[in-house]
Amino acid sequence: MSAGAVVERLRRAGLTVATGESLTGGLVSAALIDVPGASRAVLGGVVTYATSLKAQVLGVEQAVLDDGGPVQAEVARQLALGAARLLGADCGIGTTGVAGPGPADGAPAGTVFVAASLGGAVRARRLAVAGTRPLVRRAAVGAGLALLLGLLEDREQTTPVDR
Amino acid sequence: MSAGAVVERLRRAGLTVATGESLTGGLVSAALIDVPGASRAVLGGVVTYATSLKAQVLGVEQAVLDDGGPVQAEVARQLALGAARLLGADCGIGTTGVAGPGPADGAPAGTVFVAASLGGAVRARRLAVAGTRPLVRRAAVGAGLALLLGLLEDREQTTPVDR
Repeated sequence: MSAGAVVERLRRAGLTVATGESLTGGLVSAALIDVPGASRAVLGGVVTYATSLKAQVLGVEQAVLDDGGPVQAEVARQLALGAARLLGADCGIGTTGVAGPGPADGAPAGTVFVAASLGGAVRARRLAVAGTRPLVRRAAVGAGLALLLGLLEDREQTTPVDR
Repeated sequence: MSAGAVVERLRRAGLTVATGESLTGGLVSAALIDVPGASRAVLGGVVTYATSLKAQVLGVEQAVLDDGGPVQAEVARQLALGAARLLGADCGIGTTGVAGPGPADGAPAGTVFVAASLGGAVRARRLAVAGTRPLVRRAAVGAGLALLLGLLEDREQTTPVDR
């Protein structure tokens, strides 16, 4: 389970995380909080399922939502950054997409964008998942966690260890 | 699964819900969003796992946290009301407690407080759950949903049907 690896690396680095979730609906924060000892690294998260709340609560730019809808990489990036900013965390994870079964917001079912941020650095990734709603959500959770893990691993390789 | 019953009643009444979660970490919002057609009724939620965020993001009174800690009925009530207020929802569900395995915040493992609000009306309930962390969390999710369902059922019995 990559949530455990994420929490372990966050704790080792003295970093915190917050989540900004749409289609995963709280499953990313729940996975992180499920790890024993999570409280030192996991501050919490915001689930903005309604599109308007992505802008109102997490500060996703309204122009971005108007131009490209809620299912795009830039929205995932701004959800990650917005959650980290609102909750005062070092890192963020953002998820947006269409769980299905049918298409929504102009995208086919299974279209998922996840993002992870560390400070101002942010990475996003697109998934196309073939499967049921729970499977699409699980894939999004795993991809979001993996993306943050990659950021943390890269940081370890470039940060001198001085303690 | 009571999440389905909650979403059905919310939709029938034209009401919306938001969650303010602590020990459940997003599982209440995830359960609600998992219901097909949830988007008309479920706006989202906030997970304030860190105690300071309960006050900063969801407006739980600092004096209440200072006096009695994060694990008490009043905190669950203010989490429900605070989430509904922040996200602009008619109803709220709040959860706080100790998932275990050990005691925390001055309360034994398995101590859970859940609350549900509808407008300004709010109900809270205390649980003492004997079991593993996942079991304590699942019990909290079920109790929070059941509490809101009760509020919605009582409302239906006292509201004239005029359409």
